[in-house]
Amino acid sequence: MNCILLPKNATSITEPTQITHIKEVLKSQVGDSLIIGEIGGKIGKATITSIDDHEVQLRDVTLDKNPPAKLNLTVVLALPRPKVLRRLIMDMTSLGVNKLIIVNSYRSQKSYWQSPLLNRMDEFVFEGLQQAIDTVPMLVEFKKLFKPFIEDEFPALLEDGEQSRAVIAHPYAMQSWKSYLADAKNKYRMPKVLCIGAEGGWIDYEVDLLCQYGCTSVSLGERILRTETVVNVLLGDWLKA
Amino acid sequence: MNCILLPKNATSITEPTQITHIKEVLKSQVGDSLIIGEIGGKIGKATITSIDDHEVQLRDVTLDKNPPAKLNLTVVLALPRPKVLRRLIMDMTSLGVNKLIIVNSYRSQKSYWQSPLLNRMDEFVFEGLQQAIDTVPMLVEFKKLFKPFIEDEFPALLEDGEQSRAVIAHPYAMQSWKSYLADAKNKYRMPKVLCIGAEGGWIDYEVDLLCQYGCTSVSLGERILRTETVVNVLLGDWLKA
Repeated sequence: MNCILLPKNATSITEPTQITHIKEVLKSQVGDSLIIGEIGGKIGKATITSIDDHEVQLRDVTLDKNPPAKLNLTVVLALPRPKVLRRLIMDMTSLGVNKLIIVNSYRSQKSYWQSPLLNRMDEFVFEGLQQAIDTVPMLVEFKKLFKPFIEDEFPALLEDGEQSRAVIAHPYAMQSWKSYLADAKNKYRMPKVLCIGAEGGWIDYEVDLLCQYGCTSVSLGERILRTETVVNVLLGDWLKA
Repeated sequence: MNCILLPKNATSITEPTQITHIKEVLKSQVGDSLIIGEIGGKIGKATITSIDDHEVQLRDVTLDKNPPAKLNLTVVLALPRPKVLRRLIMDMTSLGVNKLIIVNSYRSQKSYWQSPLLNRMDEFVFEGLQQAIDTVPMLVEFKKLFKPFIEDEFPALLEDGEQSRAVIAHPYAMQSWKSYLADAKNKYRMPKVLCIGAEGGWIDYEVDLLCQYGCTSVSLGERILRTETVVNVLLGDWLKA
C-alpha cells in the first residue's frame, strides 16, 4: 500500500485495512504526512491529526498530482483458477491496464464461475491502485459466453478495424512476440488488445476464432510460463513502450 | 507441471506430488505418454506401464531434446518476505535465470532469515523447472552480509570488469530502464547482473554501494510495483533479448 485511496472530500480514514496499514506497517504518528489519492482523482498528501482503532483523521489534504497514465490496452483473460485471480487483478491494475474482460474458455472449469472471489474484483483493483499509486480503477467485465462475445463484441475493441492490433499469447504460435513487437514498435503502435489463456492455454478452436476476428497469435518461446508470469512479462512491454 | 523431472536412469516415478499430478490433473492411464526430463539432462517422453498410489512405472524412456538455454544472468535479490519467496523462485527458475544470490538488505527483517522456507529452495526450483519444461536447476546462494558480499564477491560476477553490465532496479532512479535497454540492445549485450530490492526497495546506502561497484540504477517509471511483478517485467527483457 504505497498510497491510501480515499473517497472524494474525505478528511478521515475509516477503512480497517488502511488503518491497520497506517498503524502497523507505516507506524505513523500524529503529525506525520501520508501519501493519499482521491478515487478517480488526483494524488497528494495529508497530515495525520489523530489515530485510533476506528479512525485516522487528516488535515491539510492537498491533491495536486495527476495519476500515472493508463496503458491503451484491454486484456481479454480466460477465467483462471480463482485462487490466482487476486494477484492477477492486482498486477494488471498496478501495471495500468485500462480494461479487463474475463471470458469463459474451454479450460476454465465451470466451478470457477461459482467462486465468491468473483464478487471481490473491486477490492483487488483497489489493492492494485494503492500498490501503484494510481487512483483510476481498471474496468472489469465478465463474459460467460466465449463465441458470442468474440463474434459480437470483440471487433468493437479494435475500433479502427486495423488488422494485427490484437495479439493472443499462445505457447505454440509460429511468430515470436519479439519479432511482432519489433514490427509494432517500428510502426509506433502497440496492440490495443491482449488475449491471455488460463492454465493449459487456449484450445485450437479458440485461437482460430480469435485469429479470425483480428488477433495475431504470438509465442514467448520454448518455456511454458504460469499465467501470472506471462501477464507481467507481456504487460511490461506496454509499460516500456 | 508441464514435465515430470526424474533422476538419471529412472524407470519409475515415486515422488508423491508427481504421482498426484499424473493421476488427478493429467488423469493419465496405462499406455499414455508422459513428457519427462532428466534432472540436469535432456527432455523426452515415456510410456506408462502401471499406476498405483505409490509408483508410476515407465517404459520406452526416450530423452532426445536439449533443455531450453538459460539466460546469461545472475539475479541479486534482497531477501523478501518468506511468503513471496516460493513464487519468486519458481518464476525466476521458469524464466531461465542462471543463478540467484539472495542477500540481506536494510529492509529485509531479521526474522525472515529464520524462516523454514529458506530450506526449501530446491523444491521451489524443481517446481519452476517442471513448469517451464527445463531440467537444469537455477543455482541459489545466500549472502547474509551485504557489504562484504558487494565489496569482495560482487565484482567477480561482472568478470570482464565492463561498466554498466549490472543494473539495479530502483523506483527513484533518474535513468529509465527503457532507455538503458535501448542502449544495451544497440550494443548487442544485456546486463549480466540484475539487482532487485525487497518490499520498500533498497535504501540509498545500498544503491550507492552497488553503483560504486559497477551497477547502473534504472527505473520502470512512476508506478510502484510488487517485487514479484518487477521481477517478471524485467526478466521478460532477457527472455526476449
